[in-house]
Amino acid sequence: MEVEKGVSLPYELATDLLSCLKRGEGELVLLKELDRLIRLQPLERLFVEGEPVTIPLQEVKLFSPLPVPPSVRDFYAFEQHVKTCRARRGLDMVPEWYQIPVFYFSNHHAVVGHQDVVKKPSYTHCLDFELEIACIIGKKGKNIARDKALEYIAGFTIMNDWSARDAQRQEMAVGLGPAKGKDFATSLGPYLVTLDELEDRRQGERWDLQMTARINGREVSRGNVKDLYWTFAQMIERASSECVLAPGDVIGSGTVGTGCILELGEEVHRWLEPGDQVELEIERLGVLKNEII
Amino acid sequence: MEVEKGVSLPYELATDLLSCLKRGEGELVLLKELDRLIRLQPLERLFVEGEPVTIPLQEVKLFSPLPVPPSVRDFYAFEQHVKTCRARRGLDMVPEWYQIPVFYFSNHHAVVGHQDVVKKPSYTHCLDFELEIACIIGKKGKNIARDKALEYIAGFTIMNDWSARDAQRQEMAVGLGPAKGKDFATSLGPYLVTLDELEDRRQGERWDLQMTARINGREVSRGNVKDLYWTFAQMIERASSECVLAPGDVIGSGTVGTGCILELGEEVHRWLEPGDQVELEIERLGVLKNEII
Repeated sequence: MEVEKGVSLPYELATDLLSCLKRGEGELVLLKELDRLIRLQPLERLFVEGEPVTIPLQEVKLFSPLPVPPSVRDFYAFEQHVKTCRARRGLDMVPEWYQIPVFYFSNHHAVVGHQDVVKKPSYTHCLDFELEIACIIGKKGKNIARDKALEYIAGFTIMNDWSARDAQRQEMAVGLGPAKGKDFATSLGPYLVTLDELEDRRQGERWDLQMTARINGREVSRGNVKDLYWTFAQMIERASSECVLAPGDVIGSGTVGTGCILELGEEVHRWLEPGDQVELEIERLGVLKNEII
Repeated sequence: MEVEKGVSLPYELATDLLSCLKRGEGELVLLKELDRLIRLQPLERLFVEGEPVTIPLQEVKLFSPLPVPPSVRDFYAFEQHVKTCRARRGLDMVPEWYQIPVFYFSNHHAVVGHQDVVKKPSYTHCLDFELEIACIIGKKGKNIARDKALEYIAGFTIMNDWSARDAQRQEMAVGLGPAKGKDFATSLGPYLVTLDELEDRRQGERWDLQMTARINGREVSRGNVKDLYWTFAQMIERASSECVLAPGDVIGSGTVGTGCILELGEEVHRWLEPGDQVELEIERLGVLKNEII
Protein backbone atom coordinates (compact mmCIF):
# COMPACT_ATOMS: atom_id res chain seq x y z
CA MET A 1 0.00 0.00 0.00
CA GLU A 2 1.63 3.26 -1.06
CA VAL A 3 0.68 6.68 0.19
CA GLU A 4 1.14 9.70 -2.02
CA LYS A 5 -1.43 12.38 -1.25
CA GLY A 6 -3.59 9.26 -0.97
CA VAL A 7 -3.37 5.49 -0.60
CA SER A 8 -3.25 2.83 -3.33
CA LEU A 9 -4.72 -0.64 -3.08
CA PRO A 10 -4.06 -3.57 -5.39
CA TYR A 11 -7.77 -4.21 -5.75
CA GLU A 12 -10.37 -3.14 -8.25
CA LEU A 13 -13.25 -1.56 -6.38
CA ALA A 14 -16.82 -1.96 -7.62
CA THR A 15 -17.60 1.12 -9.68
CA ASP A 16 -21.28 1.29 -8.79
CA LEU A 17 -23.40 0.47 -5.77
CA LEU A 18 -25.28 -2.42 -7.37
CA SER A 19 -22.03 -4.27 -8.22
CA CYS A 20 -20.79 -3.45 -4.74
CA LEU A 21 -23.90 -4.98 -3.12
CA LYS A 22 -23.70 -8.04 -5.38
CA ARG A 23 -20.10 -8.66 -4.27
CA GLY A 24 -21.35 -9.01 -0.71
CA GLU A 25 -20.27 -7.96 2.73
CA GLY A 26 -16.49 -8.09 2.05
CA GLU A 27 -16.74 -5.14 -0.30
CA LEU A 28 -18.55 -3.04 2.28
CA VAL A 29 -15.97 -3.95 4.92
CA LEU A 30 -13.22 -2.76 2.56
CA LEU A 31 -15.05 0.48 1.80
CA LYS A 32 -15.49 1.18 5.48
CA GLU A 33 -11.77 0.56 6.02
CA LEU A 34 -10.91 2.97 3.21
CA ASP A 35 -13.29 5.49 4.73
CA ARG A 36 -11.51 5.11 8.05
CA LEU A 37 -8.09 5.65 6.38
CA ILE A 38 -9.28 8.75 4.57
CA ARG A 39 -10.64 10.23 7.78
CA LEU A 40 -7.40 9.41 9.63
CA GLN A 41 -4.94 10.93 7.20
CA PRO A 42 -7.05 13.08 6.23
CA LEU A 43 -6.75 12.49 2.50
CA GLU A 44 -8.37 14.62 -0.11
CA ARG A 45 -8.20 11.91 -2.73
CA LEU A 46 -7.67 8.16 -2.74
CA PHE A 47 -5.77 6.55 -5.64
CA VAL A 48 -5.95 2.95 -6.80
CA GLU A 49 -3.24 2.13 -9.35
CA GLY A 50 -2.74 5.83 -10.00
CA GLU A 51 -6.43 6.48 -10.64
CA PRO A 52 -8.40 8.63 -8.20
CA VAL A 53 -11.28 6.63 -6.66
CA THR A 54 -12.49 9.25 -4.21
CA ILE A 55 -13.43 12.76 -5.20
CA PRO A 56 -14.55 15.56 -2.88
CA LEU A 57 -18.36 15.68 -2.67
CA GLN A 58 -18.55 19.31 -3.80
CA GLU A 59 -16.88 18.40 -7.10
CA VAL A 60 -19.41 15.76 -8.15
CA LYS A 61 -23.00 15.44 -9.28
CA LEU A 62 -24.52 12.44 -7.49
CA PHE A 63 -26.46 9.90 -9.51
CA SER A 64 -29.15 7.95 -7.75
CA PRO A 65 -27.42 5.28 -5.61
CA LEU A 66 -29.24 2.78 -7.87
CA PRO A 67 -29.97 4.36 -11.26
CA VAL A 68 -31.78 1.19 -12.40
CA PRO A 69 -32.48 -1.00 -9.38
CA PRO A 70 -33.41 -4.63 -10.12
CA SER A 71 -36.91 -3.83 -8.83
CA VAL A 72 -38.89 -1.28 -6.81
CA ARG A 73 -41.64 -2.35 -4.42
CA ASP A 74 -43.57 0.35 -2.64
CA PHE A 75 -45.54 -0.45 0.51
CA TYR A 76 -48.34 1.46 2.23
CA ALA A 77 -47.11 1.09 5.77
CA PHE A 78 -47.81 4.38 7.60
CA GLU A 79 -51.31 4.25 9.10
CA GLN A 80 -51.94 8.01 9.26
CA HIS A 81 -51.37 8.46 5.51
CA VAL A 82 -53.74 5.68 4.55
CA LYS A 83 -56.40 6.82 7.04
CA THR A 84 -56.28 10.46 5.95
CA CYS A 85 -56.29 9.68 2.21
CA ARG A 86 -59.26 7.36 2.61
CA ALA A 87 -61.12 9.82 4.84
CA ARG A 88 -60.69 12.51 2.16
CA ARG A 89 -62.59 10.20 -0.21
CA GLY A 90 -65.21 9.49 2.47
CA LEU A 91 -63.92 5.95 3.07
CA ASP A 92 -63.18 4.04 6.28
CA MET A 93 -60.06 1.93 6.69
CA VAL A 94 -60.35 -1.56 5.21
CA PRO A 95 -59.71 -4.37 7.72
CA GLU A 96 -57.26 -6.01 5.30
CA TRP A 97 -54.83 -3.12 5.80
CA TYR A 98 -54.29 -4.30 9.40
CA GLN A 99 -53.91 -7.96 8.35
CA ILE A 100 -50.98 -7.75 5.91
CA PRO A 101 -48.49 -5.16 4.67
CA VAL A 102 -49.50 -4.42 1.07
CA PHE A 103 -47.32 -3.18 -1.79
CA TYR A 104 -47.24 -2.70 -5.55
CA PHE A 105 -44.38 -2.93 -8.04
CA SER A 106 -43.37 0.45 -9.43
CA ASN A 107 -41.33 1.27 -12.55
CA HIS A 108 -37.68 0.58 -11.67
CA HIS A 109 -36.61 2.16 -14.99
CA ALA A 110 -37.95 5.57 -13.90
CA VAL A 111 -35.55 6.17 -11.01
CA VAL A 112 -33.84 9.57 -10.81
CA GLY A 113 -31.32 10.91 -8.31
CA HIS A 114 -30.65 13.94 -6.13
CA GLN A 115 -30.77 17.22 -8.11
CA ASP A 116 -32.13 15.54 -11.24
CA VAL A 117 -35.06 17.38 -12.74
CA VAL A 118 -38.50 15.76 -12.84
CA LYS A 119 -40.68 16.48 -15.84
CA LYS A 120 -44.33 17.10 -15.06
CA PRO A 121 -46.23 14.56 -17.20
CA SER A 122 -48.38 16.13 -19.91
CA TYR A 123 -51.40 14.14 -18.71
CA THR A 124 -51.61 15.46 -15.16
CA HIS A 125 -52.92 18.58 -13.47
CA CYS A 126 -52.31 17.18 -9.98
CA LEU A 127 -48.60 16.47 -9.62
CA ASP A 128 -47.66 15.49 -6.08
CA PHE A 129 -44.61 14.33 -4.11
CA GLU A 130 -44.49 11.58 -1.46
CA LEU A 131 -42.08 11.60 1.48
CA GLU A 132 -40.86 8.05 2.02
CA ILE A 133 -37.91 6.07 3.32
CA ALA A 134 -36.66 3.07 1.33
CA CYS A 135 -34.50 0.16 2.36
CA ILE A 136 -32.10 -1.43 -0.09
CA ILE A 137 -31.70 -5.19 0.01
CA GLY A 138 -28.10 -6.31 0.59
CA LYS A 139 -28.25 -10.05 0.00
CA LYS A 140 -30.29 -12.65 -1.80
CA GLY A 141 -33.08 -14.36 0.10
CA LYS A 142 -36.46 -16.07 -0.14
CA ASN A 143 -38.99 -16.76 2.63
CA ILE A 144 -37.06 -14.49 4.99
CA ALA A 145 -38.45 -14.66 8.53
CA ARG A 146 -39.23 -11.38 10.27
CA ASP A 147 -36.61 -11.99 12.97
CA LYS A 148 -33.86 -12.48 10.36
CA ALA A 149 -35.00 -9.71 8.03
CA LEU A 150 -32.72 -6.90 9.24
CA GLU A 151 -29.70 -8.97 8.11
CA TYR A 152 -30.93 -8.52 4.54
CA ILE A 153 -30.98 -4.71 4.64
CA ALA A 154 -27.87 -3.02 3.21
CA GLY A 155 -29.10 0.39 4.28
CA PHE A 156 -31.62 3.19 3.84
CA THR A 157 -32.14 6.07 1.47
CA ILE A 158 -34.80 8.72 0.88
CA MET A 159 -37.52 8.08 -1.70
CA ASN A 160 -39.84 10.51 -3.45
CA ASP A 161 -42.64 8.58 -5.12
CA TRP A 162 -43.85 11.29 -7.51
CA SER A 163 -47.56 10.91 -8.21
CA ALA A 164 -50.00 12.14 -10.84
CA ARG A 165 -53.12 12.10 -8.67
CA ASP A 166 -55.72 12.53 -11.42
CA ALA A 167 -54.27 9.67 -13.51
CA GLN A 168 -53.89 7.56 -10.39
CA ARG A 169 -57.50 8.14 -9.29
CA GLN A 170 -58.85 7.16 -12.71
CA GLU A 171 -56.79 3.98 -13.11
CA MET A 172 -57.19 2.84 -9.49
CA ALA A 173 -60.96 2.77 -9.94
CA VAL A 174 -60.39 -0.28 -12.17
CA GLY A 175 -58.65 -2.15 -9.34
CA LEU A 176 -55.12 -2.93 -10.57
CA GLY A 177 -53.47 -0.22 -8.46
CA PRO A 178 -51.31 2.70 -9.56
CA ALA A 179 -49.26 2.56 -12.80
CA LYS A 180 -49.35 5.72 -14.96
CA GLY A 181 -49.99 7.59 -11.74
CA LYS A 182 -46.43 6.74 -10.68
CA ASP A 183 -44.35 5.35 -13.58
CA PHE A 184 -42.81 8.60 -14.87
CA ALA A 185 -40.37 9.22 -11.97
CA THR A 186 -39.25 7.99 -8.56
CA SER A 187 -36.38 9.79 -6.79
CA LEU A 188 -33.90 7.80 -4.71
CA GLY A 189 -30.96 9.32 -2.87
CA PRO A 190 -28.88 11.26 -2.18
CA TYR A 191 -26.92 8.16 -1.07
CA LEU A 192 -27.21 4.86 0.77
CA VAL A 193 -26.65 4.96 4.53
CA THR A 194 -25.66 1.55 5.88
CA LEU A 195 -27.39 0.15 8.97
CA ASP A 196 -24.34 0.35 11.24
CA GLU A 197 -24.45 4.15 10.90
CA LEU A 198 -27.97 4.17 12.34
CA GLU A 199 -27.56 1.68 15.18
CA ASP A 200 -27.85 4.37 17.89
CA ARG A 201 -31.26 5.35 16.50
CA ARG A 202 -32.62 1.80 16.32
CA GLN A 203 -35.36 0.67 18.71
CA GLY A 204 -35.90 -3.01 17.92
CA GLU A 205 -37.30 -3.12 14.38
CA ARG A 206 -37.80 0.66 14.27
CA TRP A 207 -35.54 3.66 13.74
CA ASP A 208 -36.08 7.08 15.29
CA LEU A 209 -35.40 9.39 12.34
CA GLN A 210 -37.29 12.60 11.71
CA MET A 211 -38.68 13.11 8.21
CA THR A 212 -39.52 16.52 6.72
CA ALA A 213 -40.54 17.86 3.31
CA ARG A 214 -40.13 21.40 1.99
CA ILE A 215 -41.58 22.95 -1.14
CA ASN A 216 -39.65 25.99 -2.32
CA GLY A 217 -38.03 26.17 1.09
CA ARG A 218 -41.25 26.08 3.14
CA GLU A 219 -41.80 23.08 5.40
CA VAL A 220 -45.06 21.30 4.63
CA SER A 221 -44.59 17.80 6.14
CA ARG A 222 -43.14 16.35 9.33
CA GLY A 223 -43.10 12.75 10.50
CA ASN A 224 -40.82 10.04 11.86
CA VAL A 225 -39.66 6.67 10.53
CA LYS A 226 -40.53 5.12 13.91
CA ASP A 227 -44.24 5.75 13.24
CA LEU A 228 -44.32 2.90 10.69
CA TYR A 229 -47.21 0.57 11.52
CA TRP A 230 -45.66 -2.21 9.42
CA THR A 231 -41.92 -2.45 10.03
CA PHE A 232 -39.32 -3.08 7.32
CA ALA A 233 -38.80 -6.53 8.88
CA GLN A 234 -42.45 -7.29 8.24
CA MET A 235 -42.34 -5.81 4.74
CA ILE A 236 -39.32 -7.96 3.86
CA GLU A 237 -41.02 -11.05 5.27
CA ARG A 238 -44.05 -10.31 3.13
CA ALA A 239 -42.16 -9.42 -0.07
CA SER A 240 -39.87 -12.46 0.13
CA SER A 241 -42.63 -14.97 0.78
CA GLU A 242 -42.24 -17.49 -2.10
CA CYS A 243 -40.32 -14.83 -4.00
CA VAL A 244 -36.59 -14.13 -4.30
CA LEU A 245 -35.26 -10.75 -3.12
CA ALA A 246 -31.87 -9.77 -4.55
CA PRO A 247 -29.14 -7.21 -3.81
CA GLY A 248 -30.25 -3.75 -4.92
CA ASP A 249 -33.99 -4.42 -4.68
CA VAL A 250 -35.73 -1.33 -3.32
CA ILE A 251 -38.49 -1.50 -0.70
CA GLY A 252 -40.30 1.77 -0.12
CA SER A 253 -42.23 2.47 3.07
CA GLY A 254 -45.16 4.32 1.57
CA THR A 255 -45.85 7.93 2.49
CA VAL A 256 -45.39 9.14 6.05
CA GLY A 257 -48.38 10.95 7.62
CA THR A 258 -48.66 14.53 6.18
CA GLY A 259 -46.07 13.56 3.53
CA CYS A 260 -47.91 14.61 0.35
CA ILE A 261 -50.23 17.31 -0.98
CA LEU A 262 -53.08 14.80 -1.43
CA GLU A 263 -53.09 14.37 2.32
CA LEU A 264 -52.32 17.98 3.29
CA GLY A 265 -55.04 19.34 1.05
CA GLU A 266 -54.81 22.03 -1.60
CA GLU A 267 -55.58 24.62 1.09
CA VAL A 268 -52.07 23.92 2.47
CA HIS A 269 -50.30 23.73 -0.89
CA ARG A 270 -51.42 23.70 -4.54
CA TRP A 271 -50.35 20.84 -6.83
CA LEU A 272 -46.75 21.03 -8.06
CA GLU A 273 -45.84 23.10 -11.11
CA PRO A 274 -42.69 23.57 -13.22
CA GLY A 275 -40.14 25.59 -11.24
CA ASP A 276 -41.13 24.11 -7.87
CA GLN A 277 -38.32 22.67 -5.79
CA VAL A 278 -39.10 19.76 -3.48
CA GLU A 279 -36.66 18.80 -0.73
CA LEU A 280 -37.15 15.67 1.34
CA GLU A 281 -35.01 15.36 4.43
CA ILE A 282 -34.57 12.40 6.75
CA GLU A 283 -32.23 12.66 9.73
CA ARG A 284 -28.88 10.97 8.98
CA LEU A 285 -29.95 10.19 5.39
CA GLY A 286 -29.41 13.67 3.98
CA VAL A 287 -31.57 15.81 1.71
CA LEU A 288 -33.07 14.65 -1.59
CA LYS A 289 -33.87 17.66 -3.76
CA ASN A 290 -35.51 17.81 -7.18
CA GLU A 291 -36.90 20.55 -9.35
CA ILE A 292 -40.01 20.17 -11.48
CA ILE A 293 -39.70 21.19 -15.14
CA MET B 1 -19.32 -18.71 -46.45
CA GLU B 2 -18.50 -22.41 -46.26
CA VAL B 3 -21.06 -25.20 -46.38
CA GLU B 4 -20.33 -28.50 -44.68
CA LYS B 5 -23.55 -30.11 -43.50
CA GLY B 6 -24.19 -26.46 -42.57
CA VAL B 7 -23.15 -22.90 -43.35
CA SER B 8 -20.60 -20.73 -41.58
CA LEU B 9 -20.81 -16.99 -41.18
CA PRO B 10 -18.05 -14.64 -40.05
CA TYR B 11 -20.37 -12.99 -37.53
CA GLU B 12 -21.02 -13.51 -33.86
CA LEU B 13 -24.76 -13.96 -33.38
CA ALA B 14 -26.47 -12.69 -30.26
CA THR B 15 -26.69 -15.61 -27.87
CA ASP B 16 -29.98 -14.60 -26.27
CA LEU B 17 -33.14 -12.91 -27.43
CA LEU B 18 -32.75 -9.79 -25.32
CA SER B 19 -29.30 -9.04 -26.81
CA CYS B 20 -30.73 -9.81 -30.24
CA LEU B 21 -33.57 -7.30 -29.75
CA LYS B 22 -31.19 -4.68 -28.41
CA ARG B 23 -29.03 -5.01 -31.54
CA GLY B 24 -32.02 -3.96 -33.59
CA GLU B 25 -33.63 -4.92 -36.86
CA GLY B 26 -30.39 -5.95 -38.64
CA GLU B 27 -29.97 -8.93 -36.35
CA LEU B 28 -33.49 -10.16 -37.06
CA VAL B 29 -32.94 -9.77 -40.81
CA LEU B 30 -29.82 -11.92 -40.51
CA LEU B 31 -31.64 -14.56 -38.46
CA LYS B 32 -34.42 -14.71 -41.04
CA GLU B 33 -31.83 -15.14 -43.80
CA LEU B 34 -30.19 -17.99 -41.90
CA ASP B 35 -33.59 -19.54 -41.37
CA ARG B 36 -34.21 -19.33 -45.13
CA LEU B 37 -30.85 -21.00 -45.87
CA ILE B 38 -31.54 -23.80 -43.41
CA ARG B 39 -34.94 -24.46 -44.98
CA LEU B 40 -33.44 -24.40 -48.48
CA GLN B 41 -30.62 -26.87 -47.95
CA PRO B 42 -32.21 -28.38 -45.70
CA LEU B 43 -29.57 -28.26 -43.01
CA GLU B 44 -29.76 -30.12 -39.75
CA ARG B 45 -27.21 -27.89 -38.10
CA LEU B 46 -25.71 -24.50 -38.78
CA PHE B 47 -22.08 -23.83 -37.85
CA VAL B 48 -20.43 -20.49 -37.21
CA GLU B 49 -16.62 -20.79 -36.98
CA GLY B 50 -16.93 -24.52 -36.41
CA GLU B 51 -19.44 -24.15 -33.56
CA PRO B 52 -23.01 -25.33 -34.05
CA VAL B 53 -25.45 -22.43 -33.66
CA THR B 54 -28.62 -24.30 -34.54
CA ILE B 55 -29.71 -27.48 -32.81
CA PRO B 56 -32.80 -29.56 -33.65
CA LEU B 57 -35.73 -28.55 -31.43
CA GLN B 58 -36.24 -32.07 -30.06
CA GLU B 59 -32.72 -32.03 -28.61
CA VAL B 60 -33.16 -28.90 -26.51
CA LYS B 61 -35.01 -27.65 -23.44
CA LEU B 62 -36.34 -24.18 -24.22
CA PHE B 63 -35.82 -21.42 -21.69
CA SER B 64 -38.31 -18.59 -21.63
CA PRO B 65 -37.59 -16.33 -24.63
CA LEU B 66 -36.85 -13.65 -22.00
CA PRO B 67 -35.78 -15.29 -18.72
CA VAL B 68 -35.52 -11.87 -17.03
CA PRO B 69 -37.25 -9.26 -19.21
CA PRO B 70 -36.46 -5.62 -18.41
CA SER B 71 -40.06 -5.26 -17.20
CA VAL B 72 -43.49 -6.93 -17.33
CA ARG B 73 -46.67 -4.88 -17.65
CA ASP B 74 -49.95 -6.75 -17.60
CA PHE B 75 -53.09 -5.10 -18.95
CA TYR B 76 -56.77 -5.96 -18.40
CA ALA B 77 -57.91 -5.60 -21.98
CA PHE B 78 -60.49 -8.36 -22.68
CA GLU B 79 -63.95 -7.10 -21.74
CA GLN B 80 -65.57 -10.48 -21.11
CA HIS B 81 -63.01 -11.46 -18.48
CA VAL B 82 -63.38 -8.21 -16.55
CA LYS B 83 -67.19 -8.33 -16.77
CA THR B 84 -67.46 -11.93 -15.62
CA CYS B 85 -64.99 -11.56 -12.77
CA ARG B 86 -66.76 -8.44 -11.50
CA ALA B 87 -70.20 -10.04 -11.88
CA ARG B 88 -69.03 -12.99 -9.77
CA ARG B 89 -68.34 -10.49 -6.97
CA GLY B 90 -71.73 -8.82 -7.54
CA LEU B 91 -70.12 -5.75 -9.15
CA ASP B 92 -70.96 -3.80 -12.32
CA MET B 93 -68.33 -2.64 -14.76
CA VAL B 94 -66.63 0.63 -13.76
CA PRO B 95 -66.89 3.39 -16.40
CA GLU B 96 -63.12 4.02 -16.13
CA TRP B 97 -62.43 0.61 -17.73
CA TYR B 98 -63.88 1.95 -21.00
CA GLN B 99 -61.94 5.23 -20.76
CA ILE B 100 -58.36 3.96 -20.60
CA PRO B 101 -56.49 0.64 -20.88
CA VAL B 102 -55.25 -0.14 -17.37
CA PHE B 103 -52.26 -2.22 -16.33
CA TYR B 104 -50.03 -3.09 -13.37
CA PHE B 105 -46.34 -3.92 -13.18
CA SER B 106 -45.71 -7.57 -12.37
CA ASN B 107 -42.53 -9.23 -11.08
CA HIS B 108 -40.17 -9.54 -14.06
CA HIS B 109 -37.81 -11.68 -11.95
CA ALA B 110 -40.41 -14.44 -11.64
CA VAL B 111 -40.57 -15.40 -15.33
CA VAL B 112 -40.42 -19.12 -16.18
CA GLY B 113 -40.44 -20.88 -19.55
CA HIS B 114 -42.12 -23.74 -21.38
CA GLN B 115 -41.93 -27.01 -19.42
CA ASP B 116 -40.58 -25.34 -16.30
CA VAL B 117 -42.35 -26.42 -13.14
CA VAL B 118 -44.37 -23.91 -11.14
CA LYS B 119 -44.36 -24.26 -7.36
CA LYS B 120 -47.73 -23.74 -5.69
CA PRO B 121 -47.09 -21.00 -3.09
CA SER B 122 -47.49 -22.15 0.51
CA TYR B 123 -49.89 -19.27 1.20
CA THR B 124 -52.60 -20.12 -1.35
CA HIS B 125 -55.48 -22.55 -1.56
CA CYS B 126 -56.75 -21.03 -4.81
CA LEU B 127 -54.01 -21.39 -7.42
CA ASP B 128 -55.19 -20.35 -10.89
CA PHE B 129 -53.80 -19.94 -14.41
CA GLU B 130 -54.53 -17.07 -16.83
CA LEU B 131 -54.56 -17.48 -20.63
CA GLU B 132 -52.96 -14.38 -22.16
CA ILE B 133 -51.01 -13.21 -25.17
CA ALA B 134 -48.03 -10.91 -24.68
CA CYS B 135 -46.22 -8.64 -27.09
CA ILE B 136 -42.50 -8.06 -26.78
CA ILE B 137 -41.20 -4.57 -27.47
CA GLY B 138 -38.59 -4.45 -30.24
CA LYS B 139 -37.27 -0.92 -30.06
CA LYS B 140 -36.93 1.96 -27.66
CA GLY B 141 -39.67 4.58 -27.61
CA LYS B 142 -41.55 7.15 -25.55
CA ASN B 143 -44.91 8.81 -26.23
CA ILE B 144 -45.56 6.34 -29.05
CA ALA B 145 -48.70 7.25 -31.00
CA ARG B 146 -51.26 4.51 -31.56
CA ASP B 147 -50.81 4.61 -35.34
CA LYS B 148 -47.05 4.04 -35.01
CA ALA B 149 -47.26 1.48 -32.21
CA LEU B 150 -47.08 -1.72 -34.27
CA GLU B 151 -43.59 -0.71 -35.44
CA TYR B 152 -42.45 -1.14 -31.85
CA ILE B 153 -43.64 -4.75 -31.52
CA ALA B 154 -40.94 -7.41 -32.12
CA GLY B 155 -43.48 -10.20 -31.87
CA PHE B 156 -45.84 -12.20 -29.71
CA THR B 157 -45.60 -15.02 -27.24
CA ILE B 158 -47.97 -16.86 -24.89
CA MET B 159 -48.24 -15.75 -21.27
CA ASN B 160 -49.59 -17.56 -18.23
CA ASP B 161 -50.10 -15.11 -15.41
CA TRP B 162 -50.30 -17.58 -12.50
CA SER B 163 -52.53 -16.24 -9.72
CA ALA B 164 -53.08 -16.98 -6.04
CA ARG B 165 -56.71 -15.83 -5.84
CA ASP B 166 -57.08 -15.77 -2.06
CA ALA B 167 -53.91 -13.68 -1.58
CA GLN B 168 -54.94 -11.46 -4.49
CA ARG B 169 -58.43 -10.86 -3.10
CA GLN B 170 -57.08 -9.90 0.33
CA GLU B 171 -54.41 -7.47 -0.93
CA MET B 172 -56.58 -5.92 -3.66
CA ALA B 173 -59.09 -4.84 -1.02
CA VAL B 174 -56.44 -2.31 0.08
CA GLY B 175 -56.34 -0.77 -3.38
CA LEU B 176 -52.76 -1.13 -4.64
CA GLY B 177 -53.59 -3.96 -7.05
CA PRO B 178 -52.15 -7.48 -7.21
CA ALA B 179 -48.62 -8.25 -5.93
CA LYS B 180 -48.27 -11.43 -3.84
CA GLY B 181 -51.23 -12.74 -5.81
CA LYS B 182 -49.00 -12.82 -8.89
CA ASP B 183 -45.31 -12.38 -7.99
CA PHE B 184 -44.30 -16.05 -7.61
CA ALA B 185 -44.43 -17.04 -11.32
CA THR B 186 -45.32 -15.84 -14.82
CA SER B 187 -44.79 -18.19 -17.77
CA LEU B 188 -43.64 -16.81 -21.13
CA GLY B 189 -43.04 -18.93 -24.20
CA PRO B 190 -42.46 -21.29 -25.85
CA TYR B 191 -40.81 -18.77 -28.20
CA LEU B 192 -41.19 -15.35 -29.82
CA VAL B 193 -43.10 -15.24 -33.11
CA THR B 194 -42.23 -12.13 -35.12
CA LEU B 195 -45.01 -10.00 -36.61
CA ASP B 196 -44.18 -10.83 -40.26
CA GLU B 197 -45.13 -14.46 -39.54
CA LEU B 198 -48.62 -13.33 -38.54
CA GLU B 199 -49.33 -10.79 -41.29
CA ASP B 200 -51.98 -13.00 -42.97
CA ARG B 201 -53.91 -13.10 -39.69
CA ARG B 202 -53.81 -9.36 -39.07
CA GLN B 203 -56.96 -7.24 -39.39
CA GLY B 204 -55.86 -3.66 -38.79
CA GLU B 205 -54.69 -3.51 -35.17
CA ARG B 206 -56.05 -6.97 -34.40
CA TRP B 207 -54.92 -10.56 -35.07
CA ASP B 208 -57.23 -13.49 -35.61
CA LEU B 209 -55.60 -16.19 -33.48
CA GLN B 210 -57.53 -18.77 -31.50
CA MET B 211 -56.56 -19.22 -27.85
CA THR B 212 -57.24 -22.37 -25.83
CA ALA B 213 -56.31 -23.71 -22.40
CA ARG B 214 -56.21 -27.32 -21.26
CA ILE B 215 -55.80 -28.70 -17.76
CA ASN B 216 -54.53 -32.27 -17.68
CA GLY B 217 -55.44 -32.60 -21.36
CA ARG B 218 -59.04 -31.36 -21.00
CA GLU B 219 -59.99 -28.12 -22.75
CA VAL B 220 -61.42 -25.56 -20.34
CA SER B 221 -61.02 -22.23 -22.15
CA ARG B 222 -61.48 -20.93 -25.69
CA GLY B 223 -61.13 -17.39 -27.00
CA ASN B 224 -59.51 -15.31 -29.71
CA VAL B 225 -56.89 -12.57 -29.72
CA LYS B 226 -59.15 -10.50 -31.99
CA ASP B 227 -61.65 -10.11 -29.14
CA LEU B 228 -59.36 -7.63 -27.37
CA TYR B 229 -61.34 -4.49 -26.50
CA TRP B 230 -58.12 -2.49 -26.07
CA THR B 231 -55.64 -3.27 -28.86
CA PHE B 232 -51.90 -3.68 -28.37
CA ALA B 233 -51.47 -0.39 -30.26
CA GLN B 234 -53.57 1.33 -27.60
CA MET B 235 -51.78 -0.47 -24.77
CA ILE B 236 -48.40 0.64 -26.13
CA GLU B 237 -49.63 4.21 -26.51
CA ARG B 238 -50.78 4.15 -22.90
CA ALA B 239 -47.69 2.43 -21.46
CA SER B 240 -45.26 4.70 -23.32
CA SER B 241 -46.99 7.94 -22.38
CA GLU B 242 -44.24 9.96 -20.61
CA CYS B 243 -42.40 6.67 -20.02
CA VAL B 244 -39.66 4.91 -21.99
CA LEU B 245 -40.35 1.44 -23.40
CA ALA B 246 -37.25 -0.61 -24.24
CA PRO B 247 -36.40 -3.75 -26.24
CA GLY B 248 -37.54 -6.84 -24.34
CA ASP B 249 -40.26 -5.12 -22.32
CA VAL B 250 -43.25 -7.43 -22.02
CA ILE B 251 -46.84 -6.22 -22.41
CA GLY B 252 -49.47 -8.78 -21.43
CA SER B 253 -53.04 -8.57 -22.69
CA GLY B 254 -54.82 -9.66 -19.55
CA THR B 255 -56.92 -12.80 -19.50
CA VAL B 256 -59.09 -13.76 -22.46
CA GLY B 257 -62.77 -14.49 -21.71
CA THR B 258 -63.13 -17.94 -20.04
CA GLY B 259 -59.33 -18.01 -19.61
CA CYS B 260 -59.03 -18.82 -15.89
CA ILE B 261 -60.72 -20.85 -13.16
CA LEU B 262 -61.84 -17.69 -11.31
CA GLU B 263 -64.00 -16.91 -14.32
CA LEU B 264 -65.05 -20.47 -15.19
CA GLY B 265 -66.09 -21.22 -11.63
CA GLU B 266 -65.07 -24.11 -9.41
CA GLU B 267 -68.01 -26.09 -10.83
CA VAL B 268 -66.04 -26.29 -14.11
CA HIS B 269 -62.64 -26.93 -12.56
CA ARG B 270 -61.24 -26.96 -9.02
CA TRP B 271 -58.24 -24.76 -8.13
CA LEU B 272 -54.89 -26.10 -9.33
CA GLU B 273 -52.94 -28.64 -7.29
CA PRO B 274 -49.46 -30.19 -7.52
CA GLY B 275 -49.35 -32.65 -10.41
CA ASP B 276 -51.72 -30.62 -12.61
CA GLN B 277 -50.49 -29.84 -16.11
CA VAL B 278 -51.65 -26.61 -17.74
CA GLU B 279 -51.25 -26.11 -21.48
CA LEU B 280 -51.97 -22.77 -23.12
CA GLU B 281 -52.18 -22.80 -26.90
CA ILE B 282 -52.44 -19.87 -29.29
CA GLU B 283 -52.58 -20.46 -33.03
CA ARG B 284 -49.16 -19.89 -34.66
CA LEU B 285 -47.56 -19.19 -31.26
CA GLY B 286 -47.28 -22.81 -30.13
CA VAL B 287 -48.10 -24.47 -26.81
CA LEU B 288 -46.88 -23.26 -23.41
CA LYS B 289 -47.00 -26.10 -20.91
CA ASN B 290 -46.19 -26.14 -17.20
CA GLU B 291 -46.67 -28.58 -14.37
CA ILE B 292 -47.56 -27.54 -10.83
CA ILE B 293 -45.40 -28.97 -8.06
